[in-house]
Amino acid sequence: MSRRRQIYEGKAKILYEGPEPGTIIQYFKDDATAFNNQKKGTINGKGVLNNRISEHIFTLLGQIGVPTHFIRRLNMREQLVRQVEIVPIEVIVRNVAAGTLSKRLGIEEGTPLPRTILEYCYKDDALGDPMISDEHIACFGWASQEEMHEISDMAIRVNDFLSGLFAGIGIRLVDFKLEFGRVWENDFSRIILADEISPDGCRLWDMKSNEKLDKDRFRRDLGGEVEAYQEVARRLGLMPEDGGGPDTVLNLDEARKARAKD
Amino acid sequence: MSRRRQIYEGKAKILYEGPEPGTIIQYFKDDATAFNNQKKGTINGKGVLNNRISEHIFTLLGQIGVPTHFIRRLNMREQLVRQVEIVPIEVIVRNVAAGTLSKRLGIEEGTPLPRTILEYCYKDDALGDPMISDEHIACFGWASQEEMHEISDMAIRVNDFLSGLFAGIGIRLVDFKLEFGRVWENDFSRIILADEISPDGCRLWDMKSNEKLDKDRFRRDLGGEVEAYQEVARRLGLMPEDGGGPDTVLNLDEARKARAKD
Repeated sequence: MSRRRQIYEGKAKILYEGPEPGTIIQYFKDDATAFNNQKKGTINGKGVLNNRISEHIFTLLGQIGVPTHFIRRLNMREQLVRQVEIVPIEVIVRNVAAGTLSKRLGIEEGTPLPRTILEYCYKDDALGDPMISDEHIACFGWASQEEMHEISDMAIRVNDFLSGLFAGIGIRLVDFKLEFGRVWENDFSRIILADEISPDGCRLWDMKSNEKLDKDRFRRDLGGEVEAYQEVARRLGLMPEDGGGPDTVLNLDEARKARAKD
Repeated sequence: MSRRRQIYEGKAKILYEGPEPGTIIQYFKDDATAFNNQKKGTINGKGVLNNRISEHIFTLLGQIGVPTHFIRRLNMREQLVRQVEIVPIEVIVRNVAAGTLSKRLGIEEGTPLPRTILEYCYKDDALGDPMISDEHIACFGWASQEEMHEISDMAIRVNDFLSGLFAGIGIRLVDFKLEFGRVWENDFSRIILADEISPDGCRLWDMKSNEKLDKDRFRRDLGGEVEAYQEVARRLGLMPEDGGGPDTVLNLDEARKARAKD
């Protein structure tokens, strides 16, 4: 396997140049961070689980007509995706009050919101991803108004679909983060869903016990991070029923074959 | 003078029940606070100056058709205003990067913004007036979408007018805060401009020297607070040309007559 050029290393993923122009390889790390990098740690096997969960969700979203960057999973920790010009905005979709919303607005965690809220944050680690509104986005040209319409419409569709998907397996979708990218076709650009969707960027509560099945277990030192991520994968039908560690999630033969293609 | 019922005491003003139903008396204090009440102090004569400056600006805004709560100034520290149901949103209008915008988004103070930004904060001292967007306002019903249109249209008109007014006297209107209230007429409500407009809630920079003529002198321990407020009043034509302290801004006879009416 030839050495690939690393394009970017983020908190939970590394991006490599893909095998063809316009493609990227997303490598999922086990590293976990919280509170704007102030807390760091490792969740063993998280990368493998998130790669598989995100593949599953992006594939389903593609099937309902949400355009995404996902092409195919390559192996246990890597997936091939379309190269995009990332829109420097994190979109937070909230159905139930939790996290920073609860803290900032004094609303008890777990309070269902009268309607879904979309929040935008400016992607900038050094600034701590500050919350922004349409006004800042328009002022600084981070996305056009047309793009923001595409983004908010897509965010609402993703929320509707995922709320259903998770409700079907006894999980409340409290909130989640999305990122979008711009792809150019001739002289026109359009917006597609990028990044990942996994328990790293979602709040997922068991509907009966309210147990957290997401990165809050790490943020709040609740323990059982791997087990929570595994439980999400298991309910999504991605784990062999006989259990086993995260490394048994995937068919190793398949992973070897995918690697051989590089 | 009969004792009046105090309705509310804020950081810089006291509200008393007015002489007729549907009216309120705004009393302007010399108290100054900053950084969500963490810094407290007194600027001698500030209340007198702000009462006069706000009267002047609200009167001019009324003349261009912006509906306001202002009825008339009663005396040196008091003005009669319409009682409103306050909309719990502070509207920040920004023309030039400064203050929290500069800090949060990493944009150097003094950078002209590519376009005017409207920011909204939820009025809640205990929460530190957190920034919100249209999404939070709609979700929690703090104002209707129609009201937010009225508010943003009015904020832009006020900005256009005040930018001109201050440009005419050599002052750059960097940013300012507005508050709005709801008044009921039969079964219908409409939005009117409330609170005050004064150097307490505006950033006003001298166009030549960039000297700050506003509350940042207090926030940042620059000194000369009273002189800065006086300078704004003087350029607005509200100070006798022979100078004098803030207590000489007003005609004392007029103030005595106003008090006698109570």
